[in-house]
Amino acid sequence: MQAYHALEQRFARLSRLDGALGILGWDKEAIMPLGAAGERGEQIATLSVIRHELLTETQTDELLDRAERDDAATLDHWQAANLREMRRQHAHAVAVPAELVETASRAATTCEVAWRQARADSDFAGLLPKLAEVLSTQRAIGQAKGEALGLSPYDALLDQYDAGTRQDFIDPIFSDLQAGFPALLAEVLEHQAHQPAPLPLPGPFPVAIQRRLGETLMQAAGFDGTRGRLDVSTHPFCGGATDDVRITTRYDEADFSSALMGVLHETGHALYEQGRPRAWLAQPVGQARGMTLHESQSLLIEMQACRGDAFLAYLSPQLTASFGENPAWATDNLRRHYRQVRPGLIRVDADEVTYPAHILLRYRLEKALIGGQLALADLPGAFNDGLRSLLGIEVPDDRRGCLQDIHWPGGAWGYFPTYTLGAMTAAQLYQAAVADEPKLEASLALGDFSILVGWLRTRIHGRASETDTATLVRDATGRPLDASIYQAYVRRRYLAR
Amino acid sequence: MQAYHALEQRFARLSRLDGALGILGWDKEAIMPLGAAGERGEQIATLSVIRHELLTETQTDELLDRAERDDAATLDHWQAANLREMRRQHAHAVAVPAELVETASRAATTCEVAWRQARADSDFAGLLPKLAEVLSTQRAIGQAKGEALGLSPYDALLDQYDAGTRQDFIDPIFSDLQAGFPALLAEVLEHQAHQPAPLPLPGPFPVAIQRRLGETLMQAAGFDGTRGRLDVSTHPFCGGATDDVRITTRYDEADFSSALMGVLHETGHALYEQGRPRAWLAQPVGQARGMTLHESQSLLIEMQACRGDAFLAYLSPQLTASFGENPAWATDNLRRHYRQVRPGLIRVDADEVTYPAHILLRYRLEKALIGGQLALADLPGAFNDGLRSLLGIEVPDDRRGCLQDIHWPGGAWGYFPTYTLGAMTAAQLYQAAVADEPKLEASLALGDFSILVGWLRTRIHGRASETDTATLVRDATGRPLDASIYQAYVRRRYLAR
Repeated sequence: MQAYHALEQRFARLSRLDGALGILGWDKEAIMPLGAAGERGEQIATLSVIRHELLTETQTDELLDRAERDDAATLDHWQAANLREMRRQHAHAVAVPAELVETASRAATTCEVAWRQARADSDFAGLLPKLAEVLSTQRAIGQAKGEALGLSPYDALLDQYDAGTRQDFIDPIFSDLQAGFPALLAEVLEHQAHQPAPLPLPGPFPVAIQRRLGETLMQAAGFDGTRGRLDVSTHPFCGGATDDVRITTRYDEADFSSALMGVLHETGHALYEQGRPRAWLAQPVGQARGMTLHESQSLLIEMQACRGDAFLAYLSPQLTASFGENPAWATDNLRRHYRQVRPGLIRVDADEVTYPAHILLRYRLEKALIGGQLALADLPGAFNDGLRSLLGIEVPDDRRGCLQDIHWPGGAWGYFPTYTLGAMTAAQLYQAAVADEPKLEASLALGDFSILVGWLRTRIHGRASETDTATLVRDATGRPLDASIYQAYVRRRYLAR
Repeated sequence: MQAYHALEQRFARLSRLDGALGILGWDKEAIMPLGAAGERGEQIATLSVIRHELLTETQTDELLDRAERDDAATLDHWQAANLREMRRQHAHAVAVPAELVETASRAATTCEVAWRQARADSDFAGLLPKLAEVLSTQRAIGQAKGEALGLSPYDALLDQYDAGTRQDFIDPIFSDLQAGFPALLAEVLEHQAHQPAPLPLPGPFPVAIQRRLGETLMQAAGFDGTRGRLDVSTHPFCGGATDDVRITTRYDEADFSSALMGVLHETGHALYEQGRPRAWLAQPVGQARGMTLHESQSLLIEMQACRGDAFLAYLSPQLTASFGENPAWATDNLRRHYRQVRPGLIRVDADEVTYPAHILLRYRLEKALIGGQLALADLPGAFNDGLRSLLGIEVPDDRRGCLQDIHWPGGAWGYFPTYTLGAMTAAQLYQAAVADEPKLEASLALGDFSILVGWLRTRIHGRASETDTATLVRDATGRPLDASIYQAYVRRRYLAR
């Protein structure tokens, strides 16, 4: 067990470096003075390099070999899973030559900076050379990792964000979604056309009151305020470190409703982090399983629980208490407000029904770009064709088209599908939780999330990376991820009278 | 130059680790949720160990040897000073065996925790064993460093906080101060007895208004808000990182005056950090010279500039604008308020005149404890005798006596003298600045610090660690640190009609 225990110490050190990086990253987005950007970049780069060196040095490999050879028989279930996760992280890290890591990182940083301007100018042609450099380095990373891990390049990229998830798994599920999508959307829009429009929100909504309400609801949902914070940043996120989960939001005094659901969304992420098994917090096996499950937790809290009838009934008097009496706070009106469907150009503003269309398109395009079936110069046309065929709308310029997201210029290829896999997983988990716990929805109507969160603690949070995503979903719901469950959920919520 | 350049890279990495540690430390004191304390301790310990390993590994020593042998002739003045500082930091770090570093750190952490309770209970006997362990490990560190650096143990401890400052230098200066102290204090108190008492401050003073006023004055004093922040913490401090100086204060709604001067005090520290030479920010030679000069900068801004007549005349209408008309804001009254002398038990609450007495006592005692001339069990008696003889007051319990400060339980032995050396240096620097710049005080009366800060930038901030403290003071003021200048300043300020 000597080698295994030495590995635990080594990975605990990596975990503390990750924690330091998490706090430095949060600070950078939330409160850092502008003039500190250069030095902060150096601090983060220094810690990242030290982390990479510690993970890839020869001794780590030797310890892994020794532990796999000498200790495997004596490891318990969690220790064995931990050793497997250590090997996985190590394999990813050593698969890519240091020069390629650096070239890719520099290409992404350069392109991301240029992208901010190119997006503003809707200048795809201007960005093309830099974006081509990012694509070519990402493809090289996919090839290098693919060779080392026995995967296709795209699967290897995907595996960075979602261990074990493969195109073979995604393709049929997304095909199902896509096949049913046009009819479903038409039906939802037709149904909506016969409903009354939601009453407008009677603002302004002072930030201090929005914050207090958000904090109250976070706490009701189970967020442990002794081990985390809520702050403000331009782009909301969930970050921080072990026992110190930092979520952020962005307030709009004219409309409380997006910050409020944003806080609850990030609270879903935070509950996952705060619910990881205490004994394994500093080890690879104690980490959240991947981006699909992470997104499933935020969407489960936001979309499944908090936009559901039960919670909206609880929210209604809370809004009266916070903002004064108004017919807009009637549960019926909140339902209509929070479930409006409007096909649009921008992914991050999309409603729940049309969101998957944005993902189906990006997934198809990035696979084709990595695989070489689509030339980068042809991306705008392909993007615009895709959006027209899925949502029936014309993209007027690349700013609101293929330049809208940071993922591709920033080097996050293979990330997009986890959003929709997460949404589907959320629906399937929630349905199983409601079936297992008959009192769940009645408790949500009282603002009590303990039954729901308790169910998630046992099935998802507390199991961390003990097994793979597919097994976690199957164990929790009794079946593999299934597009039909998600589709049935959408029909129930958006086609109800 | 190859070895020297490799060292620059290595020390830049250390500087970024220091920056990361600075932000993590600030966060811990200012905003970290309580439940994160354990993990934050692990993150800080991990980065500290990595820092220590990088500094002490064989390769650093070899590079220093090679640079000193092969590159010395070709280094310019700043590079040579940089190499000297690198060697100094390395010599300190390698002098102490790793086990002793760890034992001492654990002893201090344990004792500091126990001290919080022991102080509350006034229980010196209960703390004694733990404090003895701290003393013995600090003495061992002093011996180890002393042997390596050719210094006495106490000088070696002192050198950690103030490079090059020795007992031989301090003793005659502190003797002068102590010899004149009883007569000076009696004279000041006699003089004060014939002055009207200051009018009470008409509170309450809302925190938001105090903060705005503090920010305005910080900015007037030259604080660069694009490279720093002002926040709140229980114990005010100046921390953070390069290009990201974080100062804190603590507001009291009943009395704005201490937070206000506290902000200006920390601004003095911040100006030093923000004024370091840009080309050398990440190198040892670009660091602030030591605790005496650091304290001199905070006290120069707070005591010399901001409690002086010129600035108080500027402050008076600012207070009216912030808190409304009141006779308490008359410049005369502010002078009386900010210059009250009251011999008391608590160092951190002491006025400028009596503060040195607290330091003279602690300096004498900690030297004797490290040297073995005083047994730790005899500390309370010696402390109480000392305070009686210096200030003529009786210490009623150890809580308000030898247990009041964190320095000894926390392992900061050799630190105390820098407070009073800093106060003396501040007076001497300010006097020289006023002599060099005839318009300085008139500009302060307009809230314009640019002449003063410009003078400090050239003489102190911008020279960083290019030479030793004594030389910096002599170059700036034309003479070595001189107790008589400080004493004359105290007489001028506290015995004026």
